[in-house]
Amino acid sequence: MSEYILNLLPLKDGEEEEFQAIAPGAVHVRARSGTVTPEQLAQATVIFGWPRPEAMKEAVSLKWFQTMWAGTDEYAGMLPEGVLFTSSSGSNSRSVAEHMLTGLLAVCRRLPAYLNSQRAHIWKDEGPMKTILGGTVLVVGAGHVGSDFARLCQGLGARTVGLKRTVTGAVEGFDQVCPLDELEALLPQADVVALALPHSPQTAGLMDARRISMMKDDAILISAGRGSVLDQEALVEAMRGGKLWGAALDVTDPEPLPPDSPLWDVPNLLLTPHVAGGMRLEITRRRCVEMAQENLRRYLAGETLVNLIR
Amino acid sequence: MSEYILNLLPLKDGEEEEFQAIAPGAVHVRARSGTVTPEQLAQATVIFGWPRPEAMKEAVSLKWFQTMWAGTDEYAGMLPEGVLFTSSSGSNSRSVAEHMLTGLLAVCRRLPAYLNSQRAHIWKDEGPMKTILGGTVLVVGAGHVGSDFARLCQGLGARTVGLKRTVTGAVEGFDQVCPLDELEALLPQADVVALALPHSPQTAGLMDARRISMMKDDAILISAGRGSVLDQEALVEAMRGGKLWGAALDVTDPEPLPPDSPLWDVPNLLLTPHVAGGMRLEITRRRCVEMAQENLRRYLAGETLVNLIR
Repeated sequence: MSEYILNLLPLKDGEEEEFQAIAPGAVHVRARSGTVTPEQLAQATVIFGWPRPEAMKEAVSLKWFQTMWAGTDEYAGMLPEGVLFTSSSGSNSRSVAEHMLTGLLAVCRRLPAYLNSQRAHIWKDEGPMKTILGGTVLVVGAGHVGSDFARLCQGLGARTVGLKRTVTGAVEGFDQVCPLDELEALLPQADVVALALPHSPQTAGLMDARRISMMKDDAILISAGRGSVLDQEALVEAMRGGKLWGAALDVTDPEPLPPDSPLWDVPNLLLTPHVAGGMRLEITRRRCVEMAQENLRRYLAGETLVNLIR
Repeated sequence: MSEYILNLLPLKDGEEEEFQAIAPGAVHVRARSGTVTPEQLAQATVIFGWPRPEAMKEAVSLKWFQTMWAGTDEYAGMLPEGVLFTSSSGSNSRSVAEHMLTGLLAVCRRLPAYLNSQRAHIWKDEGPMKTILGGTVLVVGAGHVGSDFARLCQGLGARTVGLKRTVTGAVEGFDQVCPLDELEALLPQADVVALALPHSPQTAGLMDARRISMMKDDAILISAGRGSVLDQEALVEAMRGGKLWGAALDVTDPEPLPPDSPLWDVPNLLLTPHVAGGMRLEITRRRCVEMAQENLRRYLAGETLVNLIR
């Protein structure tokens, strides 16, 4: 039976033809998440993209679904039995890593204070700055994002240590990879601590008051991934007490962050509204397309899919 | 005759001993620019550091002076005839380069807008971002700063082209080095144009309205070195008209920038008050000390000094 590929990815000129060349015998249908019809969903044997999770129950012919994001939580329990489910994990890791690096450099250079002065038209020197050259960057979570971020930090002359639950060997970007159990032993040595973990019962509240207190007084905390990993109240209290050089957070708990949160106004704390990843860079979009194409090739050849969730 | 070394550098523990080990026969005197006495100045045969330029006329025994900055303008005409004069050119190039990279990434990621939102406690997505991965960075001025900045950009996956008055061969950090004459031919190809030039009659106003108009509509302009290189009014006008993705300037003309300058409020233009270099990083201070030590070794051995101005 011929495949019916419902492609909800944001394709550019020529990319539809790339899919057709990989699966010349299939029916290729392009649509957008908002305009996809019940008929299209009912006929689709393969779906790429980001349909509304509730819509998935209409996909009665579905054999394989690849979401265009790294996260898969929202489709939990939404897919019919026996459907292959893959993610685009890694597609936006470079974007997230660059955002983490940007936040890190911004607080090293005190950009939050300089931008305050700029808004007030004030020419004011904020004194000493920091560099990560020669410093140690501890990345909690050595997945795609952690690895890409570590590689960028190495390029700036930092030593990088990655933490992951199970160490199975070297990971690109890291000078050293250690089990997550060693977190507390490593915290006091780090000039930068970067959180790049997904949400899970095991990661929730991992970076708490006690562990923040184990960091160097002039260390920098970076948080991407999921906001629940960090105890925000503990961070506010520590930084108000003079702990840490600065922090850059792209994720909070909850999101959006309520307007009355004290987190907004901590000095040298840069807060961005969960914008490190997503489709904000063309390279992320293109990577998503390539990951769908690679898995389509594997699917048709009967090979194991990349980023298989189940 | 024994040398009398007046050391005004900001030394740390152990560094005075390093100088003594290099010149065991010399008199070593430490002082600060503000507390140096007329007697010390009168006896000094060698001075390291940053004395007030007017004080130099009291240095009647002086044979060699090394300033702790890259710039030497302020001592022009202040040094007695026949005195060797060296700079610390290159000592803060890494600091300036990191600041340029920070500004570049900050505007790629729209941090000026995100910091405005943060100050207002608003959680707001600013849409597409930029990366320099795969882009072309044109660095106008391929000296110490330009070279260090280019190397950092290469580490982030950019192609780098350097412009210098006289091309004598490859320069570290650059995929290609071209004569300054080719500026106008290269401007339309660049995703980032970075100015890293000193002030001179030749560089003043180099980046004018016409040349800004030759840049890509979504390019980014970075300015370090000296503010006079850039026509600020032309930049304001171009950016208000929608030209350029963003800009990051650490230098202006004049400095401090007057409070009523329109430059302060251009969207996605990051302005810092000439703080890229100086002694804001420990690595810069240490590099200055090492450059003084290396030249002291050469001076005593009768070798040619590094960074010789005259």
